Amino acid sequence: MLAEMAEQPAVLGALLERRPDIHSRVRPLADPAPPGIVLVARGSSDNAAVYGRYLLELVVGRPVALAAPSLFTLYGARVDCRGWLAVGLSQSGETPEIVDVFRRLREAGARGIAVTNDPGSPLAQAGDAVVELGAGEERAVPATKTFLAQLAAFAVIAEALGPVPWADAELEALPGHLAALLDDPRPAREAAEVVGDADGLIAVGRGFQYAVALEAALKLKETALLLAEGLSAADFRHGPIAVMKHAFPVLALSDGGAAAPDLAELEATLRERGAPLLRLGPDPGAELPIPAGVPETLAPIVTVVRAQQLAREVTLARGLDPDAPPGLSKVTRTR
Amino acid sequence: MLAEMAEQPAVLGALLERRPDIHSRVRPLADPAPPGIVLVARGSSDNAAVYGRYLLELVVGRPVALAAPSLFTLYGARVDCRGWLAVGLSQSGETPEIVDVFRRLREAGARGIAVTNDPGSPLAQAGDAVVELGAGEERAVPATKTFLAQLAAFAVIAEALGPVPWADAELEALPGHLAALLDDPRPAREAAEVVGDADGLIAVGRGFQYAVALEAALKLKETALLLAEGLSAADFRHGPIAVMKHAFPVLALSDGGAAAPDLAELEATLRERGAPLLRLGPDPGAELPIPAGVPETLAPIVTVVRAQQLAREVTLARGLDPDAPPGLSKVTRTR
Repeated sequence: MLAEMAEQPAVLGALLERRPDIHSRVRPLADPAPPGIVLVARGSSDNAAVYGRYLLELVVGRPVALAAPSLFTLYGARVDCRGWLAVGLSQSGETPEIVDVFRRLREAGARGIAVTNDPGSPLAQAGDAVVELGAGEERAVPATKTFLAQLAAFAVIAEALGPVPWADAELEALPGHLAALLDDPRPAREAAEVVGDADGLIAVGRGFQYAVALEAALKLKETALLLAEGLSAADFRHGPIAVMKHAFPVLALSDGGAAAPDLAELEATLRERGAPLLRLGPDPGAELPIPAGVPETLAPIVTVVRAQQLAREVTLARGLDPDAPPGLSKVTRTR
Repeated sequence: MLAEMAEQPAVLGALLERRPDIHSRVRPLADPAPPGIVLVARGSSDNAAVYGRYLLELVVGRPVALAAPSLFTLYGARVDCRGWLAVGLSQSGETPEIVDVFRRLREAGARGIAVTNDPGSPLAQAGDAVVELGAGEERAVPATKTFLAQLAAFAVIAEALGPVPWADAELEALPGHLAALLDDPRPAREAAEVVGDADGLIAVGRGFQYAVALEAALKLKETALLLAEGLSAADFRHGPIAVMKHAFPVLALSDGGAAAPDLAELEATLRERGAPLLRLGPDPGAELPIPAGVPETLAPIVTVVRAQQLAREVTLARGLDPDAPPGLSKVTRTR
């Protein structure tokens, strides 16, 4: 896991170098403009798709849906997707359920972009265009470099489809930011002490950081065997905040952007309730700091590295092996 | 909470009696057929929307998306929804964020159905058609009768929009099924003993029961202050199942339909891992039984009552007040 995390600046740099090629493959698929976009994924790829869901709807200006695979695989739904754009994500390109649903959306009239590590995989073969992640083989069970490459792939796809809210230089600065974070594991080690031997944790983010909240929680479940749930800050305040009577530790993800005031308000409430609080973001004093000045729409590509480091350190502090969590295998087959 | 749960057969019966009127309001909004449908909700209404997301995509045969409110309220997204159908849900019809997003979708070209208890509310005023829930004032903090009425409203909206996979008699039998369950609280009381003093719980369902898994987990968080997470059975097996090393109790929701074999397989795995298992469904021997023969597409309207009973009994067993959980208020204002 550590070795694969360390590859991330290089994986991201290589993906960004291939931007012109990716743009030229993807751009023709959005002409004429689709009425909507549907994303197909499962597991950590589905968390990357949550980022894609926000980014593509903002940039393309058409509604984006996350597919419900069981509608097709269990209930025989026939859905008219003429003119839609479908994006299928699978690390291996082999997850049968994802390949199946992606194919059916294509057959129902959608144009398809396959996002995968393997350009020879069934998913890639079923697409009109392939975005190759180039993350290489992932051997640790918890996906790290593939997840980060999936986020970056959405950023590059967004560039092909509409005017993006960032400058080229801001995107190109990201590999350097990742390298700096990876060289600085100390904050995550100290944060793991705050988590201590808690049974549960809440990871909370809003807007673009919601995807990272989900992914942080998934990594903490998979590797540290912690009952961690990812929630939107808005949903958290609507009811689940009641559980804070038990003072579970909270990982609060901020990016200094439009959602930051919401997060700050929530953090103040949590402090009053005595929750051990880990702030991840560019704010001064954040326990898990990231560089300032990363646009909110790209920040998940940076914040997720801190979340990976936290999951790894909590896992190690519990005497567990982050590379091979008990009871998991790398490829899960669901219908 | 108990009194409001007990009103549910009558609330459902009254809503079903108003079907012809609801059909005549809703049907014109889907002609011509929309390219897609977008649902706007927050909190427990958002869990009802997950049911609506499955049901309407299956019945209408067009992709259904759940809106991401922050895209509009924080990031200034401009989304072209010409010809789309938007469904906004809010118990009070006053949640500012939901009213705001629903209005913006209407302004962007969508036709709008407002689903609310209050036909004079801002949400209702912003819609082309109103589906009145008729659940009456809800005074307990955890929503029960409103949630059930929202599920039923989606079933009635589905009838207006396409051929539904149930017979009239099956829908009309539901109030009787609810009354029978409400007269039989014993299984939930015994199930609460299985939950015991656990800190966490996983509620798991697939397909149509996924919405109930989310709602069961929310109710257990809000009232019993239990760190409960709702997961799709497919997602659970992809990674989160690792946490079962700690043998958290699992609430497994089945409906005897197409997802049932998946659930049965998962239950066998969980048994091997020694998890305290609560099966909710029509299967013989289920700890939380429901009547056999309810179509899977309507089953959430029945299974959610068992989930409410479980949340209430776990809450009482912990010496807490289900009507007024500490740290929550009835109306939450989020931007």
